[in-house]
Amino acid sequence: MQIAVLLFDHLTALDVVGPYEALSRVPGATTVFVGERRGPVRTDVGSLALTADATLAEVPAPDVVLVPGGWGQTRHMADGPLHEWLRAADAGSTWTTSVCTGALLLAAAGLLTGRRATTHWLATGQLADWGVEHVAERVVVDGKYVTAAGVSAGLDMGLLLAGLIAGEDTARAIQLGLEYDPQPPFAAGSPRTAPAPIVELVRSLEGSILRGE
Amino acid sequence: MQIAVLLFDHLTALDVVGPYEALSRVPGATTVFVGERRGPVRTDVGSLALTADATLAEVPAPDVVLVPGGWGQTRHMADGPLHEWLRAADAGSTWTTSVCTGALLLAAAGLLTGRRATTHWLATGQLADWGVEHVAERVVVDGKYVTAAGVSAGLDMGLLLAGLIAGEDTARAIQLGLEYDPQPPFAAGSPRTAPAPIVELVRSLEGSILRGE
Repeated sequence: MQIAVLLFDHLTALDVVGPYEALSRVPGATTVFVGERRGPVRTDVGSLALTADATLAEVPAPDVVLVPGGWGQTRHMADGPLHEWLRAADAGSTWTTSVCTGALLLAAAGLLTGRRATTHWLATGQLADWGVEHVAERVVVDGKYVTAAGVSAGLDMGLLLAGLIAGEDTARAIQLGLEYDPQPPFAAGSPRTAPAPIVELVRSLEGSILRGE
Repeated sequence: MQIAVLLFDHLTALDVVGPYEALSRVPGATTVFVGERRGPVRTDVGSLALTADATLAEVPAPDVVLVPGGWGQTRHMADGPLHEWLRAADAGSTWTTSVCTGALLLAAAGLLTGRRATTHWLATGQLADWGVEHVAERVVVDGKYVTAAGVSAGLDMGLLLAGLIAGEDTARAIQLGLEYDPQPPFAAGSPRTAPAPIVELVRSLEGSILRGE
């Protein structure tokens, strides 16, 4: 089973590394990080680069496609080689997945039309522009399309998908290996739970915190 | 405020990327990934490389030191240049931190002697070998030393530390930006909650799942 993780400039690193830690540990999985060019890809805050080991053309038929978000996503909404690759890879994939605003890339490529999906809470309103129904859940499974909410939701998605692929006990073993027993220090991870002034602050910054500004 | 994130071959990527996503977004923070050599550093499963942008010698006096774990940690337990850098960086740091078995590196370098700390649940028994008291908490703060349990605990640690550095409201805003409202699909993230056969499986593999084998 080949897992293709898409990289592009100014993606959010945790969007890919969260699900990667779960999915890459599924027995029989081979993971490859792909980009428009091989080499280091600088993430959103700018101080971390992940390496693309293959070009899009070199990974034409993955079993699992994983698309991250991050503010670099806004530069890839127009049709072009990246959308063409997404459509071609999706045509043969078993699972097509996204984290955070990666769902907007899948949507813009036409892959989520008429489907149920989610994305970062600041971007949920954009899904309707592409004919996608937003569902207010942390991970949404609609057929082979699995979309996760913002950034850290990718780890929940990765473990859920590991269970669908390899069985729940394998997923549980991976979860225990990753010691994923989360204890957030604050009740602030969702606009439902965060104090209203914090929600307004983050909303007014229009996601600039996600860009590390 | 300069944050130095240590990279070494076969580290676990999430150990650094979790806390990085929180700490690098603290206003005024500059994050640098450091290694024995500049360039790509291959993580434990082998399919992801993170880039070291600076050598140890180029980052002699960071304000925050972050040390990850992963099976590569076992190759760095003997004294040498890496331990020398840890001791020198720690001498001037405001915070010295670890995730997962990174605590064993801090301990082996002599920085946790007589202190309270934690590490990955499979490795807690090793802390006593270095005169360190294990505390069964997800994040342990003892003076300026902040240690986190296995892998995914780094995100909890990063947010807690962001609050200590920049105030709790800033940490809450970062948490909301990262949409960190975790919903693990299984109750299996700790040996306390995972089914006993799963705990025995992971224990018998002696952490090989963490190595992606």
